[in-house]
Amino acid sequence: MSQVVKGIAASDGIGIAPAYLLVDPDLSYEKKTIDDPAAEYARVEAAFEKSIKQLETIKENAASRLGAEELAVFDAHITILSDPEMMGQIKDSIETNKVSAEEAVDTVTTMFSDMLASMDNEYMKERAADVKDVAKRAMSNLMGKELPNIAGIDHPVIIVAHEITPSDTSQMDAKFVKGMITDLGGRTSHAAIMSRTLRIPAIVGSQTITTDAKDGEMMVVDGLNGDAVLNPSEEEVAKYEQAAADYEKQLAEWAKLVDAPSVSKDGKEFEIAANIGTPDDVEDATKQGADGVGLFRSEFLYMSGDHFPSEDEQFEAYKKAVEGMNGKPVVVRTMDIGGDKPLDYMPLPEELNPFLGYRAIRICLQQPDMFKTQLRALVRASEFGPIQIMFPMIATVAELRAAKKIYEEAKAEVQATHPGLGDNVKIGMMIEVPLAAVNADALAKEVDFFSIGTNDLIQYFFAADRGNESVSYLYQPLNPALLSVIKHVIEAAHRHDTKAAMCGEMAGDELALPLLMGMGLDEYSMSATSILRTRSMMSKLDTKECAELVEEAINLSTAEEVAELVKSRLNK
Amino acid sequence: MSQVVKGIAASDGIGIAPAYLLVDPDLSYEKKTIDDPAAEYARVEAAFEKSIKQLETIKENAASRLGAEELAVFDAHITILSDPEMMGQIKDSIETNKVSAEEAVDTVTTMFSDMLASMDNEYMKERAADVKDVAKRAMSNLMGKELPNIAGIDHPVIIVAHEITPSDTSQMDAKFVKGMITDLGGRTSHAAIMSRTLRIPAIVGSQTITTDAKDGEMMVVDGLNGDAVLNPSEEEVAKYEQAAADYEKQLAEWAKLVDAPSVSKDGKEFEIAANIGTPDDVEDATKQGADGVGLFRSEFLYMSGDHFPSEDEQFEAYKKAVEGMNGKPVVVRTMDIGGDKPLDYMPLPEELNPFLGYRAIRICLQQPDMFKTQLRALVRASEFGPIQIMFPMIATVAELRAAKKIYEEAKAEVQATHPGLGDNVKIGMMIEVPLAAVNADALAKEVDFFSIGTNDLIQYFFAADRGNESVSYLYQPLNPALLSVIKHVIEAAHRHDTKAAMCGEMAGDELALPLLMGMGLDEYSMSATSILRTRSMMSKLDTKECAELVEEAINLSTAEEVAELVKSRLNK
Repeated sequence: MSQVVKGIAASDGIGIAPAYLLVDPDLSYEKKTIDDPAAEYARVEAAFEKSIKQLETIKENAASRLGAEELAVFDAHITILSDPEMMGQIKDSIETNKVSAEEAVDTVTTMFSDMLASMDNEYMKERAADVKDVAKRAMSNLMGKELPNIAGIDHPVIIVAHEITPSDTSQMDAKFVKGMITDLGGRTSHAAIMSRTLRIPAIVGSQTITTDAKDGEMMVVDGLNGDAVLNPSEEEVAKYEQAAADYEKQLAEWAKLVDAPSVSKDGKEFEIAANIGTPDDVEDATKQGADGVGLFRSEFLYMSGDHFPSEDEQFEAYKKAVEGMNGKPVVVRTMDIGGDKPLDYMPLPEELNPFLGYRAIRICLQQPDMFKTQLRALVRASEFGPIQIMFPMIATVAELRAAKKIYEEAKAEVQATHPGLGDNVKIGMMIEVPLAAVNADALAKEVDFFSIGTNDLIQYFFAADRGNESVSYLYQPLNPALLSVIKHVIEAAHRHDTKAAMCGEMAGDELALPLLMGMGLDEYSMSATSILRTRSMMSKLDTKECAELVEEAINLSTAEEVAELVKSRLNK
Repeated sequence: MSQVVKGIAASDGIGIAPAYLLVDPDLSYEKKTIDDPAAEYARVEAAFEKSIKQLETIKENAASRLGAEELAVFDAHITILSDPEMMGQIKDSIETNKVSAEEAVDTVTTMFSDMLASMDNEYMKERAADVKDVAKRAMSNLMGKELPNIAGIDHPVIIVAHEITPSDTSQMDAKFVKGMITDLGGRTSHAAIMSRTLRIPAIVGSQTITTDAKDGEMMVVDGLNGDAVLNPSEEEVAKYEQAAADYEKQLAEWAKLVDAPSVSKDGKEFEIAANIGTPDDVEDATKQGADGVGLFRSEFLYMSGDHFPSEDEQFEAYKKAVEGMNGKPVVVRTMDIGGDKPLDYMPLPEELNPFLGYRAIRICLQQPDMFKTQLRALVRASEFGPIQIMFPMIATVAELRAAKKIYEEAKAEVQATHPGLGDNVKIGMMIEVPLAAVNADALAKEVDFFSIGTNDLIQYFFAADRGNESVSYLYQPLNPALLSVIKHVIEAAHRHDTKAAMCGEMAGDELALPLLMGMGLDEYSMSATSILRTRSMMSKLDTKECAELVEEAINLSTAEEVAELVKSRLNK
């Protein structure tokens, strides 16, 4: 009998393959007194040797795909498994306390990792995590159980996991992964974002899939509708194969729109842009027909190295991006670190609520020299194409003015040697702090464009951490009151000849699109993978009908009612 | 020469007394090899004995003031100082490694506390803090340095500290504390709130006072203006003594208003209510002439015990409060735990951003049985006076409806035996989540009253944790955009015959008062200590002039401009 499990559709497409359970086996054991310590210790040695061999094999197989840093982790783990002090203590523990190999390995490795974790030192804390990882492997070998090995996947699978971490995706060979489904996560979780980037059909937030699915059992992941089918019947497989084929055909249709304008049924022109993380992403953005880059997250420059990026390093990156876009605009968001994006080389205080803390523009205003380095690099890069600069996390008019003042100083410094450079650079800000949204009229007077960052805006408007499962029910892009706020922001922008863009997940959301078009949002910036689908949808929508839909929607009471309304309208 | 240090005025009044530096001495030491381990260990024993004697004395002196729980901490500390295992390891360390007494004590106590801290157990983590505390005392005795002893203060002082913790205030004999001043904290910090409750003049957020002030040096704390004067001249002392006398006179004037109505110069009636934490606070609220209780924080019922309070326990507490108010209304906020208020007996998941997490109504809606227990107790207590019920952290209409549905069920359960009871209970909600503020019209249709919780509302609207120093510049109650939001909430309430109250710090703020009166806010709920001052100020303000002031204020750009405007108007 087949079984359907529902979750949140996180990445389009349909995958059909056997389930691969990325779930640790049960490693609990009963405590007992043993008679033969030598034999017991021999079991430990055997398990450790087996673990070392496994790690060597995994490393070998992954060598062609992974970078040096990822591969070094395997060496570190092998070293731990050969540590004479740890082995000595395990042996002692078995001989002195007459405990089982399981108990000795568990106790001693836990002690080692706790000791490392208690040191106030990031490096040591990471080593503590390594010891735990290794202990898990050793324990599973000791108990004859198999550990999931994501790096070793060499045939088509659907990955089934409680949640998927960055370390999982870094080890994974994407060509074998036909789908992913998790218990946890929402549309903005790591698993969801990675699945869209890698174009793997995905469902998140299913809550129960790791208990529902059996390892190796055939399953379907329908990332278009959020349905997973376990143990599908032949008819179901046929049905989904047909749906997958239809989807492929649709992709081919969409691909024809790569050079088409982004225009509504009634001929109103919009822009559909790409969100990118590095200059290399520009290639994909142009392949997908982006009208520009609506959000270039400059953080990668800060987070990938071990020092603040120099002005020249930044200049080269911005130049590459803007040149790659061939005259189409590139909006660069200035440094958005802090919060959940710490830097190893810039110690920031520990914060109880990092999302409500010292981050982004708040840091830049306190450290104008660092900020100016970025701004000078941006002004210089504007020689090579239409760069636009966007400030994140602005809450007040005073902050915006302070940021603009530092920008003017940076520009003047560049113009000392490059007269006139930067005079055409447009300046904008994110609308992601609630106060800025309600104060959009005052702010619109002082910038060339807004970009509504819906991920943070929704998080703050609902006072609900978007990474926190317990309050994920409050991620409601279609809530009527939130829609009113977005409408207010767009209208305020237009009252002052300011362009209104959006660069959060909501910009690529199918149900949100008609509403945003109805409000007159000018630019929609999203994952490159969503651009053609959106352009196709846009071409079928009439802006006057959309505007009427907005009026109906904001007079409803709940997000569910809005979703129903939009669905009924789209399907008629 | 005297020196003036400025900070944030946190609690009214003027204190003049010698500075008492609540600052730990420098306990760093140089590592060295010692020759005579026996003599070195004798130093350790002497320091530990001295530490035990000190703790015994402190405990004796504090015995009359402190509760059993606070006193037990001293016993726990004495026990640690007599721990044979720890002493043995210190002795070993000196003998084996030839290190100094300082290094041995430091290393061994750090190891013990780290070990305790690394255990995943709240009790053990607290013991780790105890070991650290004790080690500090032992080290200071070893080095012949004196540790501040807040419990031992027996003469008038001004407490000067980096910050003041709940443990500090619990040990302090308030009658000797003539003033407090800290480096850190804003108007909503623990130090600020406690100083107002204890009626101690206070300044917070001075940033540098612990380096500026010398222990024992005379100083003035002017909590009315936020100025501290170090080493004041005779003239300055005379001037501040006069100011203190004037302030006393003013207090006496205000005291006459205890039975007066809360009314503006032009005869418009308002209500000034008290925020309370336990039923015992009702006595003080009535003494200060409160028109009611605008916020009864029911958390104390949950946080003071080791189990969920039973329906009868809650009923007794609410009954006591409402009876104590003699027919004046008592607004009880339903359980607001989670976030920064965890419960030992209700394990909640660790959260990255607790202020954006699973708290208050979000928990209650998931645990309706617990919630109903509270609601039934409230309905039953309404037999003894006008109880009103207020839901915290409501973001959406759907949440409000869900909470009201559970309330209706609870009321029906009570009415099975008490027909009609609770039918007159008014139902309201906090406006503290930004979405609720912008959606005030829809919400006002469904409740009898709003209470604007400005502490959280400001924190969320600016996306800035109010406990985080790095972003404290974003606590801006007078920001024009925020004022517009508050005005919108009040007007929306009145459009639907809903009462508009406020229970955050802003309700008692002198500069905010004319603006809030101009917006037509109905009820102002605050620390009992601020009621009479507010009533006096209110009687001197004309609501039509206040309304004009609001229009001017919301058209300004920054909070500073608004503050200047209001000050100039109040002083003319």
